[in-house]
Amino acid sequence: MNMLFKATKFVVAAALLAGLSTASMAKERVYKWKLATTWGPTLSPFIDAPTNMAKMVEEMSNGRLVIEVDASNKHKSAFGILDMVKGGQYDMGHSASYYWKGKDINTMPFSTMPFGMTTAEQYAWFYHGGGMALMEKTYSKHGILSFPGGSTGNQMGGWFRKEINSVEDLKGLKMRIPGFAGEVMAKLGLTVTNIAPGELYTSLERGTIDALEWVGPGMDINMGFHKVAPYYYTGWHEPGLDLHFMVNERAFKKLPKDLQEILITAMRVSAYDMYIQNYHMSADAWSKIASEYPNIKIKTFPKEVMDALKQTNKELRAEMVKDQPLLKEILDSQEAYQKKVRKWTEMSDYLYLKDNL
Amino acid sequence: MNMLFKATKFVVAAALLAGLSTASMAKERVYKWKLATTWGPTLSPFIDAPTNMAKMVEEMSNGRLVIEVDASNKHKSAFGILDMVKGGQYDMGHSASYYWKGKDINTMPFSTMPFGMTTAEQYAWFYHGGGMALMEKTYSKHGILSFPGGSTGNQMGGWFRKEINSVEDLKGLKMRIPGFAGEVMAKLGLTVTNIAPGELYTSLERGTIDALEWVGPGMDINMGFHKVAPYYYTGWHEPGLDLHFMVNERAFKKLPKDLQEILITAMRVSAYDMYIQNYHMSADAWSKIASEYPNIKIKTFPKEVMDALKQTNKELRAEMVKDQPLLKEILDSQEAYQKKVRKWTEMSDYLYLKDNL
Repeated sequence: MNMLFKATKFVVAAALLAGLSTASMAKERVYKWKLATTWGPTLSPFIDAPTNMAKMVEEMSNGRLVIEVDASNKHKSAFGILDMVKGGQYDMGHSASYYWKGKDINTMPFSTMPFGMTTAEQYAWFYHGGGMALMEKTYSKHGILSFPGGSTGNQMGGWFRKEINSVEDLKGLKMRIPGFAGEVMAKLGLTVTNIAPGELYTSLERGTIDALEWVGPGMDINMGFHKVAPYYYTGWHEPGLDLHFMVNERAFKKLPKDLQEILITAMRVSAYDMYIQNYHMSADAWSKIASEYPNIKIKTFPKEVMDALKQTNKELRAEMVKDQPLLKEILDSQEAYQKKVRKWTEMSDYLYLKDNL
Repeated sequence: MNMLFKATKFVVAAALLAGLSTASMAKERVYKWKLATTWGPTLSPFIDAPTNMAKMVEEMSNGRLVIEVDASNKHKSAFGILDMVKGGQYDMGHSASYYWKGKDINTMPFSTMPFGMTTAEQYAWFYHGGGMALMEKTYSKHGILSFPGGSTGNQMGGWFRKEINSVEDLKGLKMRIPGFAGEVMAKLGLTVTNIAPGELYTSLERGTIDALEWVGPGMDINMGFHKVAPYYYTGWHEPGLDLHFMVNERAFKKLPKDLQEILITAMRVSAYDMYIQNYHMSADAWSKIASEYPNIKIKTFPKEVMDALKQTNKELRAEMVKDQPLLKEILDSQEAYQKKVRKWTEMSDYLYLKDNL
């Protein structure tokens, strides 16, 4: 028995005398965690969700769980988050679930689906309609615990240099629109391209592309698209995009129960908070754009275009679920829930807003 | 120096030897708090907000802050919460801010206002549009810290035995509708009454009253109103009713910093959670009502009635702010924010839903 061990035993005995438990002393251990995110260090509000989460965790745990947030410029692997969390290089990640559809198609629907649920509807599905269980079923295969990570709210359909009056008008247009929505657009005859964010403004200004989709006014304003494309179309493709927290399961299990609860609660609240923050940023940014660029027109695609988008979406969805039972289970669950919850959305906010715009 | 004091000093020295601070030992103190709520013990989801909050606090603090939630059947003072928290009989309360308008008119707008903001809009105002500062300005006079406590979402306008086609149809009706909305209705010629919740169903069934307002399908279904009144009108009067947490300022200041953060975070997340819970409950309940009682009609008041309600609301608002500079400041802030944020709501969810009902 060395001196250090003796001293520890001595302290334990003394602490017990004062009503402290050994467990409470063990709890003083500091856990240092690392989180990797897809976002750059200034990409507000996306980067704010993990940053605020880490701050809350540190304060609530009195410094016992400290999470360092590495933005994409640090780890240089914006789209490697799933693998880094799975492999344990990072304890946590913050990204978007649909980025992993190439690795595991089942991860896709937890972000958003074209013509899918709005933010409140999707959170009701996550927490009360079976969504969390399906997300667990999907991510447990990767040794990952996963949680909603913040909603952008309804995204805009994009900036167009010319007005769209028919499906014919869409044909041959070059557009930057990623993901499943890009596949839908490609099937309607658009040339869908991907361009680095830093080159988007110049591409749109010079006519290298005719249109692009980004997020919504709150994030679009800094990109300056409103200076070069006067038609701002409303959304159909990402009605409630949710970002996503991932936690390495082995790392999580090593935390004491109270720190687990602190972590879960901080993720949950920072996700909600991001939705509200982006709601505010969008309202604010649109008000600025509209007053400085009064020529910009908010447009909704005409019925003909919307019907074609819906039909194409349906066809692609049918192809996609072939031989994918879990994907089908997730999409079926979302669609059944949406059908039920949409009626309430109509009776409550929609009919109220109709008379109060 | 007595033996106890000596023993304590001894433990402190020993603990320091093992790297524990005196602060960390002081932190092991257990705080036992009491919360009074306006709601009965089974009034879901209202009662769930403080109950879930207390559970989260206990788990995150590892039992160092334990909050006992007293429902209204315990303290027998459903509308005495403000006074009990102010006086320190309770450390916390959960209620609705507009219940205190008789004591302090400035507390009213933090719940909801007729033709006011929806839930997401109102949370954006609270957290990014100056709402929290105005709430602090109002409640600090009472020695109380106050926080959003959970939104019902858009409430329904109520159950009517007869269809309303004109302002004339409203005249002479007896209706249960409390608060400011009741004053608006009274000015339009209705006889506004208050009836105990337990007697509402019988009153409506027997025709003692012709109409009543409660919350929305999620909470209305257990009351059974759909069995006796076939017209369910959409809302105008409580577009985003928020419940409300109150904390006695002196009690709060006695908590260590980490417990303060835990408490604030738990209140914040349980408020958001209640909104999502009620969204789900409403969707679920409406689906049940609609399939079992297919004769029930969802109606919106005709334009003539809506215009009269808006005009009357405006007149009452003008009377109310006379000689009430803080109330005017709060309402002006809400209305300016609503004007800005509503445009975003229109561009995002409203126009999306228009094509996807």
